[in-house]
Amino acid sequence: AQSTHVAITPGDGVGPEVVAEAVRCLQVLREKHGLALEWTRFPWPSHAWHEEHGESWPEDALEQLAGYDAILLGALGDPGPMDDSERYLLPDSISLAPLLDMRKGFDQWVCERPARLLPGARQYLKDDRAKDIDMLVIRENSEGEYVSQGGRLRKGTQDEVATQMEVFTRKATERIIRYGFEQARKRAEERVQQGRTRSFRTLDGRTCESQVCVITKRNALRHWGDMYTEAFEEISQEYPDVATHHELVDAACMKFVQSPWAFDVVVASNLQGDILTDLAAVLSGGMGVAPSCNLNPTDPDMPSMFEPTHGSAPDIAGQGIADPTAMLFTTARMLDWLGQKDEALALAGKELFDAVAADLAEHGGERRATREIGEEVCRRLKA
Amino acid sequence: AQSTHVAITPGDGVGPEVVAEAVRCLQVLREKHGLALEWTRFPWPSHAWHEEHGESWPEDALEQLAGYDAILLGALGDPGPMDDSERYLLPDSISLAPLLDMRKGFDQWVCERPARLLPGARQYLKDDRAKDIDMLVIRENSEGEYVSQGGRLRKGTQDEVATQMEVFTRKATERIIRYGFEQARKRAEERVQQGRTRSFRTLDGRTCESQVCVITKRNALRHWGDMYTEAFEEISQEYPDVATHHELVDAACMKFVQSPWAFDVVVASNLQGDILTDLAAVLSGGMGVAPSCNLNPTDPDMPSMFEPTHGSAPDIAGQGIADPTAMLFTTARMLDWLGQKDEALALAGKELFDAVAADLAEHGGERRATREIGEEVCRRLKA
Ligand SMILES: CC(C)[C@H](C(=O)O)[C@@H](O)C(=O)O
Ligand SMILES: CC(C)[C@H](C(=O)O)[C@@H](O)C(=O)O
Repeated sequence: AQSTHVAITPGDGVGPEVVAEAVRCLQVLREKHGLALEWTRFPWPSHAWHEEHGESWPEDALEQLAGYDAILLGALGDPGPMDDSERYLLPDSISLAPLLDMRKGFDQWVCERPARLLPGARQYLKDDRAKDIDMLVIRENSEGEYVSQGGRLRKGTQDEVATQMEVFTRKATERIIRYGFEQARKRAEERVQQGRTRSFRTLDGRTCESQVCVITKRNALRHWGDMYTEAFEEISQEYPDVATHHELVDAACMKFVQSPWAFDVVVASNLQGDILTDLAAVLSGGMGVAPSCNLNPTDPDMPSMFEPTHGSAPDIAGQGIADPTAMLFTTARMLDWLGQKDEALALAGKELFDAVAADLAEHGGERRATREIGEEVCRRLKA
Repeated sequence: AQSTHVAITPGDGVGPEVVAEAVRCLQVLREKHGLALEWTRFPWPSHAWHEEHGESWPEDALEQLAGYDAILLGALGDPGPMDDSERYLLPDSISLAPLLDMRKGFDQWVCERPARLLPGARQYLKDDRAKDIDMLVIRENSEGEYVSQGGRLRKGTQDEVATQMEVFTRKATERIIRYGFEQARKRAEERVQQGRTRSFRTLDGRTCESQVCVITKRNALRHWGDMYTEAFEEISQEYPDVATHHELVDAACMKFVQSPWAFDVVVASNLQGDILTDLAAVLSGGMGVAPSCNLNPTDPDMPSMFEPTHGSAPDIAGQGIADPTAMLFTTARMLDWLGQKDEALALAGKELFDAVAADLAEHGGERRATREIGEEVCRRLKA
């Protein structure tokens, strides 16, 4: 049997630093745990490649990546130094484009971002129930606000009109909502296996073990809001065991702060999901620990892409202080996705949680050394 | 001289309850402080009116309201009871439409939502610096994501496509950004008068007494993001005394949780402003205390509209427990707008802060009686 082969694209800023620790762990997993995985590193997409070639990645980049079983990405978006007029040389709309191109090119229509408060991680909320945060935000990743349609009429003049089209299809809406319900069921089953339970109320007063909350802004963005509402109502009939809930995006942000522990699975559009996942990440320990993946669950020939939620963080790049935890969780999710469940668990199971928690406790929830954390995790993986 | 005349539209849910307390205070201000103000109450827009007439308000509602100097609105959006299939009789996209119609009809292009942590109010953040939160979110209120353009093609079928157009004009962009800079200066001056100072750093290392942060999602919604960026850079040249800052909306949500005290004036688009103001409201004491206003600063013939940030809260309506504080701050902002500065200060100055703070302390930052708070404020106004 052919071994699994992933493409690693470290990217910019802290990307290569946290990827180095992920690779260190993969090596241990290969040597000590028999992980059957190969990888190939790519110098693109990156700022450096852009400087040399005038583009963030080669023209046939997607074709090259298509041959791999998955893509592990560090972070993109190093703006480079500022020029004389305080403008960055490479605006993020250019340097980050490959991210969106990959998601689109490989039809990675699910973006999964789980949020659980890591023990010992920095806690922003006063309420102690924050330790119970355990939600999965599922972001529609293929359309919506991110279709890149629109433009600038009479650009730069006083009469300029800039437009941006949001396009939502019923098919993509139904598949992401259905995916949300499936994940809710799966999470409930996992909880049962772990001897944990949660309970959620349905509108008609029944109690369920899981919940899906769908997000829209249907009182202002009515067209797709109504379509989402109808699709959600229809599909929920197939899942009478899952409680349902609808929140407007503004109220959802508020409730994420007031009672994030009340959410289970949250399904949101591309932009609203982007906003909610940043919020969920910071509420559950910060960007340094928030994993993310862009999945194509329908076409096995298309690679899925795994990247931490955080960006390239140019302000701390090169100092060796970026937290690799998000990257390690992301890597574990990739192994899980590739069917290497035991190795995924070894990497991101109790061991990683404990290692990180111990380290966080020691350093007061603040910055630690990237390498130190990676080495500590490796030590535990070897033991 | 003609006295000032405002239209009061209590609306639905808790709207009439909190409006009653505002009116009680206005009466005291009229009797004891010589406030020259008349008001007329309207039974619309409301759910009840809709039930009787099949529409939320009369066809000539905007013409009727146009004759007033301002509009004081309670809250809209009572969905009414659910029908047999658990659907609300009046979806919020219909019951809330008058709100958007007023904003548009009277070209209330500024939505101002200040956020300061009310002493004694519920604090969600652990960090004690939350008590220093003092920001003004200025939301573009006339276009952008809220233009209501788009529709549903092949509605209800598997091939449905729902679109929503975002339209941004250079003129509206410049006027809201310039408004932001003007407010930043004004706030800095007020702080100096009050013997307070704040300091913000510019990109080139200078220190300023105020800051404007502009929000976009230019790395994904590039067209208007770029236009905003360019307009912001251009206009900032006219205000070298104000520090500038750009944040992506997702990062801004994160920073609102991590360090909301670092913001001064924030300028955001219609939808992004909607999201950020809910977040700012909850971080600074909750919806019960967050005022809001929809201003037309350019056309004196068009009434501005003053409404608390909160909605009709059907879950607590009729119980007399809605917090009228947001409504009272909103009313004070209206008086200030109408040139009744002393009365505005009497209502929302130290007195109100103290009354509310004392009450909050007594009740542990939780729900109190609507009437009780209103009466306490009146008592202080009479004294
Ligand atoms: C970099 C940017 C285009 C991207 C997004 O908005 O999707 C990022 O914020 C994310 O959340 O992955
Ligand atoms: C009711 C709704 C349409 C409105 C908005 O989105 O503007 C509300 O959320 C607000 O913030 O005033």
